Amino acid sequence: MVGGGKNAFIGAVHRIAAHMDGLIELSCGALSASAENAVESGKMLFLPEDRVYLNYEDMIRQESKLPADKRIDFISIVTPNHVHFGPAMMALEHGFHVVLDKPMTFTLDEAKELKKKADETGLMLCLTHTYSGYPMVKQARAMVKEGAFGNIRKVYVEYPQGWLSNLTEKTGQKQAAWRTDPKRSGKSGCMGDIGTHAAQLAEYVSGLQITELCADLHIMVPGRKLDDDGNVLLRFNNGANGVLMASQVAAGEENPLKIRVYGEKGGLEWAQQEPNTLIVKWLDQPTQLLRPGVGYTEPLSSFAQHNTRTPGGHPEGYLEAFANLYRNFALALSAKMEGRKPTPEMLDFPGAADGVRGMAFIDNVVASSASKEKWTKFTI
Amino acid sequence: MVGGGKNAFIGAVHRIAAHMDGLIELSCGALSASAENAVESGKMLFLPEDRVYLNYEDMIRQESKLPADKRIDFISIVTPNHVHFGPAMMALEHGFHVVLDKPMTFTLDEAKELKKKADETGLMLCLTHTYSGYPMVKQARAMVKEGAFGNIRKVYVEYPQGWLSNLTEKTGQKQAAWRTDPKRSGKSGCMGDIGTHAAQLAEYVSGLQITELCADLHIMVPGRKLDDDGNVLLRFNNGANGVLMASQVAAGEENPLKIRVYGEKGGLEWAQQEPNTLIVKWLDQPTQLLRPGVGYTEPLSSFAQHNTRTPGGHPEGYLEAFANLYRNFALALSAKMEGRKPTPEMLDFPGAADGVRGMAFIDNVVASSASKEKWTKFTI
Amino acid sequence: MVGGGKNAFIGAVHRIAAHMDGLIELSCGALSASAENAVESGKMLFLPEDRVYLNYEDMIRQESKLPADKRIDFISIVTPNHVHFGPAMMALEHGFHVVLDKPMTFTLDEAKELKKKADETGLMLCLTHTYSGYPMVKQARAMVKEGAFGNIRKVYVEYPQGWLSNLTEKTGQKQAAWRTDPKRSGKSGCMGDIGTHAAQLAEYVSGLQITELCADLHIMVPGRKLDDDGNVLLRFNNGANGVLMASQVAAGEENPLKIRVYGEKGGLEWAQQEPNTLIVKWLDQPTQLLRPGVGYTEPLSSFAQHNTRTPGGHPEGYLEAFANLYRNFALALSAKMEGRKPTPEMLDFPGAADGVRGMAFIDNVVASSASKEKWTKFTI
Amino acid sequence: MVGGGKNAFIGAVHRIAAHMDGLIELSCGALSASAENAVESGKMLFLPEDRVYLNYEDMIRQESKLPADKRIDFISIVTPNHVHFGPAMMALEHGFHVVLDKPMTFTLDEAKELKKKADETGLMLCLTHTYSGYPMVKQARAMVKEGAFGNIRKVYVEYPQGWLSNLTEKTGQKQAAWRTDPKRSGKSGCMGDIGTHAAQLAEYVSGLQITELCADLHIMVPGRKLDDDGNVLLRFNNGANGVLMASQVAAGEENPLKIRVYGEKGGLEWAQQEPNTLIVKWLDQPTQLLRPGVGYTEPLSSFAQHNTRTPGGHPEGYLEAFANLYRNFALALSAKMEGRKPTPEMLDFPGAADGVRGMAFIDNVVASSASKEKWTKFTI
Repeated sequence: MVGGGKNAFIGAVHRIAAHMDGLIELSCGALSASAENAVESGKMLFLPEDRVYLNYEDMIRQESKLPADKRIDFISIVTPNHVHFGPAMMALEHGFHVVLDKPMTFTLDEAKELKKKADETGLMLCLTHTYSGYPMVKQARAMVKEGAFGNIRKVYVEYPQGWLSNLTEKTGQKQAAWRTDPKRSGKSGCMGDIGTHAAQLAEYVSGLQITELCADLHIMVPGRKLDDDGNVLLRFNNGANGVLMASQVAAGEENPLKIRVYGEKGGLEWAQQEPNTLIVKWLDQPTQLLRPGVGYTEPLSSFAQHNTRTPGGHPEGYLEAFANLYRNFALALSAKMEGRKPTPEMLDFPGAADGVRGMAFIDNVVASSASKEKWTKFTI
Repeated sequence: MVGGGKNAFIGAVHRIAAHMDGLIELSCGALSASAENAVESGKMLFLPEDRVYLNYEDMIRQESKLPADKRIDFISIVTPNHVHFGPAMMALEHGFHVVLDKPMTFTLDEAKELKKKADETGLMLCLTHTYSGYPMVKQARAMVKEGAFGNIRKVYVEYPQGWLSNLTEKTGQKQAAWRTDPKRSGKSGCMGDIGTHAAQLAEYVSGLQITELCADLHIMVPGRKLDDDGNVLLRFNNGANGVLMASQVAAGEENPLKIRVYGEKGGLEWAQQEPNTLIVKWLDQPTQLLRPGVGYTEPLSSFAQHNTRTPGGHPEGYLEAFANLYRNFALALSAKMEGRKPTPEMLDFPGAADGVRGMAFIDNVVASSASKEKWTKFTI
Repeated sequence: MVGGGKNAFIGAVHRIAAHMDGLIELSCGALSASAENAVESGKMLFLPEDRVYLNYEDMIRQESKLPADKRIDFISIVTPNHVHFGPAMMALEHGFHVVLDKPMTFTLDEAKELKKKADETGLMLCLTHTYSGYPMVKQARAMVKEGAFGNIRKVYVEYPQGWLSNLTEKTGQKQAAWRTDPKRSGKSGCMGDIGTHAAQLAEYVSGLQITELCADLHIMVPGRKLDDDGNVLLRFNNGANGVLMASQVAAGEENPLKIRVYGEKGGLEWAQQEPNTLIVKWLDQPTQLLRPGVGYTEPLSSFAQHNTRTPGGHPEGYLEAFANLYRNFALALSAKMEGRKPTPEMLDFPGAADGVRGMAFIDNVVASSASKEKWTKFTI
Repeated sequence: MVGGGKNAFIGAVHRIAAHMDGLIELSCGALSASAENAVESGKMLFLPEDRVYLNYEDMIRQESKLPADKRIDFISIVTPNHVHFGPAMMALEHGFHVVLDKPMTFTLDEAKELKKKADETGLMLCLTHTYSGYPMVKQARAMVKEGAFGNIRKVYVEYPQGWLSNLTEKTGQKQAAWRTDPKRSGKSGCMGDIGTHAAQLAEYVSGLQITELCADLHIMVPGRKLDDDGNVLLRFNNGANGVLMASQVAAGEENPLKIRVYGEKGGLEWAQQEPNTLIVKWLDQPTQLLRPGVGYTEPLSSFAQHNTRTPGGHPEGYLEAFANLYRNFALALSAKMEGRKPTPEMLDFPGAADGVRGMAFIDNVVASSASKEKWTKFTI
């Protein structure tokens, strides 16, 4: 693991997610830029002293020298955005698979380069767009794909948070500090952090691709340098239209990412804060509530089932969705290492292509927001 | 009443709303363009035969000749949009107050002319933007006004319906037929019918005015002549931004108009299908559910209380919200007729100014949608 | 109308409900035991002076002497429980139909006597168990009746209110005062006031009858004379079991009457505070949300449709449910007066038989609560 | 681990819960009564071959002979009820701490004996009443304890499931088979399996103890030997009353365990299927929604915070609640092993005393249901 020392939010989440299914063991780490923190964090995590590294370069170099049955199989990178490309590229170059937090890199060019390297080496790269790991998101995607709703006409995705309603970054909150800092976060704040999740979810569930957009980004809290709020009109490759809203100044909101997709015959609605219900609406039938783990006569899609651990009514949450990424990645990796062909369910995790589209999304919304033209083509 | 014969949806709603509080009596009608329907409808409504008119011109002329204690006090106009201006103007000219269905007229110019006449005559005009009649909408407006949320940053209003997902207008559905017909509806379909409701609600609750917009209207069902779907980016006069979505092809949706407003200290959420709960979110306090008719230590605003008929937990709905418009109009009218000064609560119903803004909203979104410029100034 | 003067809660509700559909006109009243209040209330309601009576005896006598086309058709009685029997019996004796607030009378014997008189005279008696007037309650009953859920196994009804959590009756609250007073309310407080609603709803929806019960009533607020809380185990005539809970000391609750019924194949859930959704659960199909006014391929029952005024998504509430009782009563009355046969939908309002069962319910729960025997037979 | 071989539901849950926080490692197992299954399951779980045992006696004996730094610290027992006492007692006798699935044992006497042994040895015993592991359940308990609601008056707990609506046990469903078999489950089916959860939750949240009960148990599906449904009236040691309902034939229900507690000043509501919201209702203040991980000005209780892993809006679920039991148990164990005093938060997991009360609950409801007396004293 690169990053994720004491008090890091997302590093702890990665570890829980990786541990959950008993398939992955944390073996070494370059856990912090601070040597002291790195050592202390290593202890806290019961790592052997000789595998607690002080920087990722050492870690990758040393680990690659270990015999195959001792060394790590893959590297998780959970650092701020500006420290994604370096360790990821080096890991790929040394033959390690990679799990990488989103957004993929600091710039679009880095993302393309990284994708190219992954393609060349044949190594796997998993990008932790957590929300696509939920079973009912899988079900939503499967239903759209099967044509349950006919041609899709409208995609409505929203991601309002309230945690940056004040200048939290000035109060010593580490999360807020790097996310609002162009030097560590990149050219967008809100859209980079959560807009990318919303865009990935929109494309993942609808099976469509954004082709044009019209963005209106804002800095609502004076004194901030990056957008903390934005609204984007969308057009998709099949003619559907959409709206993407993301905000970090929606005071009082926690994390209610929500998507609605409408087609000719009906629509669906899924909300992250109540993730175990997929609301399915029909033109001339009563609305249905689809739930994971329940034995319906017409079963849920194999993708939903594969990503469910508990029987109906035993709610799974964010950590399980996150763990599904790790689990699928690990299952696919094991299969490959053992010469088996991974199933489509195993391979169903976000990868380098999503990462490149995510970075392009950031570039395009920032460009559109600065433009007087209504529509900006989605270019990569 | 002008319009509202047998089988007319909104005419029946107007009558229930007018009757509900025992303050208003239906006395005469020009209920249908078809003489037969007009007569039959008059019978059905227990109207005296001599006050069942075959057209509004006759009605207004005849009624204005009756002695003051016999003739009607005001006229309700519940016809399709292209028959709003004529009877409304003639009513004002003959000294009758007017209740008028929205949107106010067929064109913006008509709306301005009507407003001018109402202003000149001092007669009252009530425009039935039903949704602003709900008690918890009143409460929302009052809280924003009192500064409970600080400066407003974002307004998010959505109005997805699904009833025009197919070419319903070709199946003999009268409602669908006139609403999709440019000759009767005007230059916009979806935005004129429900977008205007959403815009009025956004301005009413936030106390702000839209100053710029960027619209993307669509005809999603081939063969239709007017927009049946649209997304609009908004900017308000205090610097807040917003999104307005309205659709009649959101298959599976009924009528879930919903508004969210976020300020510096918190936000609110209100949804028309569960109208008796106002969700109030705070930056650092638990979310609260405000409900009408409950005796809180810190009571609801006088506007919410005035528009509530039942004690807590006895749900009121759409018809009561509609009746609140009639009730306030009737109370204000009675007060005026009796030489009393109407209270602010009585005068709190949408009027000619809202109507003009609504017609301007239609003009501006249609213009913006046709433009390649990102932003269109909201002009009247 | 007997009772229902200024400030009376349920009288005002009755008037709104009666007015709503334009079928009923308030023509006279004995509105208060206080002469002053009676006269003032009559003015407020625009009643002609000569039909504002000072007591119900005068009213019934005088009205019965008027010519048929002038006099009232029926009498609404909205007084406290101890003044139900007198006016109702006298009205029946003078040939007037009756609408009567629940519970039917002060004692079970009175109820039986009243039922006998109604049966003998052939006059109609409508008992305002409001909650059975909701369209989705009608739908629930229809689905159970059609066997959609197979044999019913369990009925779970709850009615928690919080308004008597303190000794409100000592603070001048009139509603609380008579409802907690054995001389005006009868032998039970909570069970008489709201337990009867819950029991009627349970039997109405399930189509079953309670045959045995085991009650545990409580006075939770010291200083009170009648039960303010209670739990009752139920057994039904088909072998189903159930629970009925009613409380007026469930602090913080408004009026969330709720019923759940489970059969072999599925179950249903309906809650009064969100009355426009009937949740239907299936053994091996996704849960469905049934909603009034929506055009499903398989339409809602004719009873649900008949009691719906608005299209889907335009919520109806408590006042409409109440108005459905009056509307059906008026439609059945008109039909009878005009020699037509009322439809089953028109006749679907609670009557004398429900009233007798309600009074027996009160007697039986009070007896059971005082008994050390587990089960008390439901006797009438 | 004893039990929990391939296809066992609760064994897998235990493992995920134990793994989640990286504090516990599965080291050995007697995973199945079938030797073949035991061996295969051991492989599947990456256990070293020499620590895959064929029965728990071998396991406990062998492990106790290993040096302290090699042998296991505690044993998890996840077998059907009739195989709880044996391994648990033997584990305690050999100095191992115990995690034990509920209900504690097959008979009340066994439970008492086990508790005695645990008390004597000073070894820890954790009983996996999962639902008390949720952060918002902790918050509920804390608020009641602090007197936020005043004296508690009413506890309403319900646990309707639908999975045994048919004779599932005859279709080869292993879960259903042992749970409906008196030889493996004990003297109660539904009340033993889920009624005990409901009772434990009621006492845990309210801080009260059941002193009397009146039970009505049923076998609703013909051909079954143990109760599959029941309703119980409750009385508590402070004079509060309550209702406990548990059913496995509530067709269409998943696992919606729900508790409501009402006191003098307000009440609370928590439902397992949406576990991240605690609804708090006040007599004269708006209802509040309390949520884990949110930084309120008045923070959640230390118990809620300690049992939360994610920031607000990142839902945790059943597996996290389960993991909280393991985590607290492990933290307390580590503290003890390292000579530190465990914090109250660490020690907050259900133990032998809860287990004895649970077994007594089963005995008492079964006795009460068979009795004609209304009330049965809760005896241990």
